[in-house]
Amino acid sequence: MARVVVDVMPKPEILDPQGKAVTGALGRLGFSGISVRQGKRFELELEGEATPERLAEVEKAAETLLANTVIETFTVRVEADEPAAAEVKA
Amino acid sequence: MARVVVDVMPKPEILDPQGKAVTGALGRLGFSGISVRQGKRFELELEGEATPERLAEVEKAAETLLANTVIETFTVRVEADEPAAAEVKA
Repeated sequence: MARVVVDVMPKPEILDPQGKAVTGALGRLGFSGISVRQGKRFELELEGEATPERLAEVEKAAETLLANTVIETFTVRVEADEPAAAEVKA
Repeated sequence: MARVVVDVMPKPEILDPQGKAVTGALGRLGFSGISVRQGKRFELELEGEATPERLAEVEKAAETLLANTVIETFTVRVEADEPAAAEVKA
């Protein structure tokens, strides 16, 4: 099993109402100096290994279904088994 | 400016209807052997540096607003300026 993460974010030039709403709410909650953009994270469990062919297939799936490429960009990355050291797990 | 990413995912034991729906759709589109879990990705632009105090503040903001900690887990990580080498930008 391989885990591949697809992160989908609104294009920078596209209005991000959700991000704006979260930014405003954080300000009202007293968290100042933080601006937020909100997107989607997909964790894909692939049967078998993350071969280049499988990654190309994942990219096709992202283009077809996971992201609306008119207004969103996406990145595909294979996730190592352990989370990166800098992560703060809650 | 520092960029901090907060990834929010449903807890493993929690039913993930969105993920199930995407998994089913991928199957119907001919992408087999892929199971999907869907969460949220927040990109936070912080004024000033990502000091430990600021990261603690971000974690508090994630607990308070960005994640519903009853059914979701979150990770906080400082993102290097360039995307990691393995990423496939589209």
